[in-house]
Amino acid sequence: MKALSVVQEKRRSSSKIVFQTILSRRSVRSFSDHRVPSNLVLQLLEAARWAPSGSNLQPWSFVVVENPRLIRLVRMFAQGLAGNPSLIIAVCSEKPDLRYPLGPRSALCYNMNAAMAAENILIMAEALGLGACVHLSFNLMALNVILGIPDHVDLKLLVSVGYPKGKVVTPPKRRLKDMAFKEQYGVRKWS
Amino acid sequence: MKALSVVQEKRRSSSKIVFQTILSRRSVRSFSDHRVPSNLVLQLLEAARWAPSGSNLQPWSFVVVENPRLIRLVRMFAQGLAGNPSLIIAVCSEKPDLRYPLGPRSALCYNMNAAMAAENILIMAEALGLGACVHLSFNLMALNVILGIPDHVDLKLLVSVGYPKGKVVTPPKRRLKDMAFKEQYGVRKWS
Repeated sequence: MKALSVVQEKRRSSSKIVFQTILSRRSVRSFSDHRVPSNLVLQLLEAARWAPSGSNLQPWSFVVVENPRLIRLVRMFAQGLAGNPSLIIAVCSEKPDLRYPLGPRSALCYNMNAAMAAENILIMAEALGLGACVHLSFNLMALNVILGIPDHVDLKLLVSVGYPKGKVVTPPKRRLKDMAFKEQYGVRKWS
Repeated sequence: MKALSVVQEKRRSSSKIVFQTILSRRSVRSFSDHRVPSNLVLQLLEAARWAPSGSNLQPWSFVVVENPRLIRLVRMFAQGLAGNPSLIIAVCSEKPDLRYPLGPRSALCYNMNAAMAAENILIMAEALGLGACVHLSFNLMALNVILGIPDHVDLKLLVSVGYPKGKVVTPPKRRLKDMAFKEQYGVRKWS
């Protein structure tokens, strides 16, 4: 009985830490000059690698841009990628027709897999005391050239990463009871 | 100095727990008969609610199906949704043309936001000792009727949740050095 309760207590304290990390993650757009050490970058990439993927295909790849001049060049073609990130992780994916047998659903699946890998990066960044932000608005043709993305690969999104500078604001959030329902949409609200 | 090192030590131990949780998450497809208590379901939904979204629009909504007969009905129209989950969370999204000003990118953005909310559910489930799995293959027309999804909302994906039954296998994973590159795609591998 005692051993069980120790395990339960450990689970409870771990789950609290994970919950708090997920809830305290913010989109950080302003970074200090401190560089992110490579052992932390490695943890971000490992977190991304272990995201789920349809049929376990793991179709993704990652380009880590740390060269300040290359970062500046990327930013010229990614409106909204503000601040002075220590690095940018370009999350890419194989083009689905090459390996995936699901037809029209495969593009959706690949997009979602890339997003899940990115979310793992964001959560892991928060846990490490870093800040990060996802960017979907960029000039794809220009970035394909700058980052050397080959024809069989799609650049899906960019994640800027660095140490947060200044106060990170919590934007207004919709209430759970306005977005969660029991059994059927709109019938019984979650309360 | 001492206070700083205590903070650093706490950060280190927290980030280890988050890292381990992300790495130990698996797609669980076999569940025991134990029901998931509602305070844990609430944590899954809260985790989803705090996912990032384009322009902070938070376009999502969630339908939690716990009625065993309704779960059976959903499963009839979702091939691959195996096992006997305690609950199914249907992750939905407003249709983008209603609120989003980004044109063709908005559909991609909404899909990715739904996937990020789902990934938060998966990680939180792992932290709570639960198992979960994302499903993209289902009969959309049938599930729209069963779950009462209105016309202005898209059902994006299903997450089955329960207590894992039996051994959960780790599928083979691609190595990081085969998917991560420095500065440009394919030039210098991450090592």
